[in-house]
Amino acid sequence: MSTVNIHGIIGYTITPFTAEGEGVDLDALGRSIDRLIDSGVHAIAPLGSTGEGAYLSDAEWDQVSEFSIRHVAKRVPTIVSVSDLTTAKAVRRARFAEAHGADVVMVLPASYWKLSEAEILAHYRAIGESIGVPIMLYNNPATSGTDMSVELILRIFNAVENVTMVKESTGDIQRMHKLQLLGEGRVPFYNGCNPLALEAFAAGAKGWCTAAPNLIPQLNLDLYEAVLANDLSKARELFYRQLPLLDFILKGGLPATIKAGLRLVGLEAGDPRLPVFALGETGRSQLQGLLNALR
Amino acid sequence: MSTVNIHGIIGYTITPFTAEGEGVDLDALGRSIDRLIDSGVHAIAPLGSTGEGAYLSDAEWDQVSEFSIRHVAKRVPTIVSVSDLTTAKAVRRARFAEAHGADVVMVLPASYWKLSEAEILAHYRAIGESIGVPIMLYNNPATSGTDMSVELILRIFNAVENVTMVKESTGDIQRMHKLQLLGEGRVPFYNGCNPLALEAFAAGAKGWCTAAPNLIPQLNLDLYEAVLANDLSKARELFYRQLPLLDFILKGGLPATIKAGLRLVGLEAGDPRLPVFALGETGRSQLQGLLNALR
Amino acid sequence: MSTVNIHGIIGYTITPFTAEGEGVDLDALGRSIDRLIDSGVHAIAPLGSTGEGAYLSDAEWDQVSEFSIRHVAKRVPTIVSVSDLTTAKAVRRARFAEAHGADVVMVLPASYWKLSEAEILAHYRAIGESIGVPIMLYNNPATSGTDMSVELILRIFNAVENVTMVKESTGDIQRMHKLQLLGEGRVPFYNGCNPLALEAFAAGAKGWCTAAPNLIPQLNLDLYEAVLANDLSKARELFYRQLPLLDFILKGGLPATIKAGLRLVGLEAGDPRLPVFALGETGRSQLQGLLNALR
Amino acid sequence: MSTVNIHGIIGYTITPFTAEGEGVDLDALGRSIDRLIDSGVHAIAPLGSTGEGAYLSDAEWDQVSEFSIRHVAKRVPTIVSVSDLTTAKAVRRARFAEAHGADVVMVLPASYWKLSEAEILAHYRAIGESIGVPIMLYNNPATSGTDMSVELILRIFNAVENVTMVKESTGDIQRMHKLQLLGEGRVPFYNGCNPLALEAFAAGAKGWCTAAPNLIPQLNLDLYEAVLANDLSKARELFYRQLPLLDFILKGGLPATIKAGLRLVGLEAGDPRLPVFALGETGRSQLQGLLNALR
Repeated sequence: MSTVNIHGIIGYTITPFTAEGEGVDLDALGRSIDRLIDSGVHAIAPLGSTGEGAYLSDAEWDQVSEFSIRHVAKRVPTIVSVSDLTTAKAVRRARFAEAHGADVVMVLPASYWKLSEAEILAHYRAIGESIGVPIMLYNNPATSGTDMSVELILRIFNAVENVTMVKESTGDIQRMHKLQLLGEGRVPFYNGCNPLALEAFAAGAKGWCTAAPNLIPQLNLDLYEAVLANDLSKARELFYRQLPLLDFILKGGLPATIKAGLRLVGLEAGDPRLPVFALGETGRSQLQGLLNALR
Repeated sequence: MSTVNIHGIIGYTITPFTAEGEGVDLDALGRSIDRLIDSGVHAIAPLGSTGEGAYLSDAEWDQVSEFSIRHVAKRVPTIVSVSDLTTAKAVRRARFAEAHGADVVMVLPASYWKLSEAEILAHYRAIGESIGVPIMLYNNPATSGTDMSVELILRIFNAVENVTMVKESTGDIQRMHKLQLLGEGRVPFYNGCNPLALEAFAAGAKGWCTAAPNLIPQLNLDLYEAVLANDLSKARELFYRQLPLLDFILKGGLPATIKAGLRLVGLEAGDPRLPVFALGETGRSQLQGLLNALR
Repeated sequence: MSTVNIHGIIGYTITPFTAEGEGVDLDALGRSIDRLIDSGVHAIAPLGSTGEGAYLSDAEWDQVSEFSIRHVAKRVPTIVSVSDLTTAKAVRRARFAEAHGADVVMVLPASYWKLSEAEILAHYRAIGESIGVPIMLYNNPATSGTDMSVELILRIFNAVENVTMVKESTGDIQRMHKLQLLGEGRVPFYNGCNPLALEAFAAGAKGWCTAAPNLIPQLNLDLYEAVLANDLSKARELFYRQLPLLDFILKGGLPATIKAGLRLVGLEAGDPRLPVFALGETGRSQLQGLLNALR
Repeated sequence: MSTVNIHGIIGYTITPFTAEGEGVDLDALGRSIDRLIDSGVHAIAPLGSTGEGAYLSDAEWDQVSEFSIRHVAKRVPTIVSVSDLTTAKAVRRARFAEAHGADVVMVLPASYWKLSEAEILAHYRAIGESIGVPIMLYNNPATSGTDMSVELILRIFNAVENVTMVKESTGDIQRMHKLQLLGEGRVPFYNGCNPLALEAFAAGAKGWCTAAPNLIPQLNLDLYEAVLANDLSKARELFYRQLPLLDFILKGGLPATIKAGLRLVGLEAGDPRLPVFALGETGRSQLQGLLNALR
């Protein structure tokens, strides 16, 4: 299996749509990727929640996946979210991403019917056996409807060779403590919950998967640097400075708030797909205020 | 808008797959529909949760939708679930179903990102304006991730002309009471939670949407008849008789348990699509025991 | 062990306080008991949630317990709530109630520290062994903080000889179904959740423990009679008629709303003890409106 | 109003009982207080959850309160929990504690009936107006049944002059972030959730209210010192070292585990009061193992 050192600030990309939301605007996508890389993020993660992966047709998904990987062009590692409702489709996406050069694939156990632990394990195993790149297991019950216990995560980590990283987004910091203790420090974990950025780093997270660098990359990077420098006071100060914006983009829905924010800074990326609304006027002026305060 | 009187036992169909789960077995689907209609159900509902609608490709969805409507052939009304993640795709499915003869479409506000009330209303409005048949609004937070309050349901009912029925599957009987009180008795509601069959009829539900008639149609129909006959004692007795089976098929996951049950009674409908497992051996023998006890 | 047939409408008494809430107004308590019995309730239950049992000193509790039992004077059975935080104190209260003539004692496993199943069983066993009258086990997690599963309830029912009745107040009607199925019909259960009155009777509840007869006894009794007469339509009609009031008294807090209601009908019973507020002016006029509508 | 600087490690005392749990063992209480103070804790908190305050009679409560304050003898500040179910009784306890020399009183809005925000505010106001010492507002929905939002806490903090500190025990670290942001850094907050010790300090908590110093005072103090020294790596390492013990004492119930632990180190403090069980044999040997590992 190939290896790659994933750490630090992992930036989620949005998926820009053309007017009326009918097609993907690859030109804008390329510019949004360049902005993230130029700002200094340590990895790029396309097609996640922020990237509206779930709202794309299969053809669009392939198009965005292929384009993103090629456009990143190994300047930093690329982590492609390949989750899908059936195992067969998730396997297809994982293979597609690997074939086009993804460094890592991220897998959330998407579900309609509640899955048993055996079903979840088999899902990861099937994907793992079909590719050679590492898998970042992703736990986010709020969007997937499936909450994996720490015990289950460790079972999968131990049973599926290329599940080598864990992204935790429950919002419960004690899950990370438990991962650290029960995993005896051998399980690299990443934070996917923006308002827990400080706490996750305090708990030992190796990285922070976040859409925030689309808007405030320097503050995100500075927080990570302060933690690396073992400077808790500075990390705390930097965290509280950016927290209002982190809260805002999460509560407003990441595709809506990040796309609105990019428009405010001059990158037109269209609106989210309906039924998700674009950020309303009140929200836009709150966002502008928050961004102004951070300049 | 066309009208149709939906009431009584509304039978969900499964979607049979060929071996390896790769294609749809239309022949078996036709036979499962005939069994339901011959047993006396008052309506047929394809492509719901039981029908693994969410696990189908768009082409398969179209195929199952068209075939089911044509095969029912107006012997009873057909209620097609047309939910999809984007408004555009749900509209497309609703139009497709109407064009092929569906009597009613059922709409669950599927979501990945949590929807606001305004977003949900706009979603129903867009679908409502694109078709001429009635819509059964469907609330099921366990599968959709979105819980619509009774107040929101009534707002949609009042704002969108062809939302004329409500299916409630939260498992909280007080939602039906509230629908009845706040709706001043003008909102026909249907029960989608098997273990609440008796209670929902006691509360005034007009029908029961259920996969159970695939296995025990007579008991389902008898319960409804006892309620129509105002015979509470008999309804209670019939309910408790079938409750262990109702609990079992729900807890085991409807596609897995109903497909296993059909196999036990001689109709081969394949297995659910992975990651959902077919019912295991222990489950199959429990199910056989439950069915034997009801003969 | 003595036996007594508890069924039908079991009326909770309030505990009237003198001005400033400093003492108990026994005269008003006597009159409130007489009103309930004269209206036709089948049993009287002092010192429950409605009776602010938890807000009394030990001396007051003894006073109210003794007076209530003596004043009922066997006209109907008396069911005294004897819950307390320690086992020793609950045993003392149970013995006191029995010594003064209570027909049944009701026991909720009050807790500060979460109790294990073994601790709860031992608590019931200790009380059971200290008295000769039957115990009505009471499950109400909203006030006690302890939710007893149906399996645990049945273990206690089977292990402690004088636990012979179960009062269920979780608000989840499926608990009663499960009690009926797993208890094989041998466990008499009673409903303690006002808005589930119809559903609980439909499910086979033997009685309804309620403070509502302080205000609308005839409607409560009529509902019970309709169920006994196997007339579901009439029961449903009677239920929906009284449901707005049942919802109101529950949501406003039973001591506040029942005391306010008694004042409206001419019985001065004082206010609840602080920090619980008396019903405010808006609430009082809503309550008056609801009562007027039911005359 | 008197002022006092509460910070650092605030040690909860147990309440030792004599054999059979009938009386309070003041001698053992005195020794347990001396152990805590000698170990270096920055304040002493009697009669909290660990101290089984809720399980004491009024006379016992007075006895423990008076003795503890006198025995601490101003070596460190004393923070007495004065919560009670009625406002009148909580006021009485607050006055008693102040009269006997308490530096601070701690108030949890204990409730049986769910309290409105206005009722909670009035409760704090009544207590605040009756005493001259500062109040530490305490939020712990798991034991009190009442969850105060950050907005409500700030309203009380602003409205009641001597509410000058907040203890947060929901286990949700984001509550502290919100207190810090909305309170604009003016609200000193303290952590009451042992497994969040590191995170709370990272978030800026001024102190940690904990029963752990009865067993591992040096580790608790070292963690605080590492935070003061801005040494995140060392704080993290110290936190993970003590976390298994912190988890254990919380999950086993603080009175049971701390009393068992004190017995293991040679201080006989009796057992918790029934229905709470003493720690069983398996638990005792786990605890011994955890303590051995930390030596």
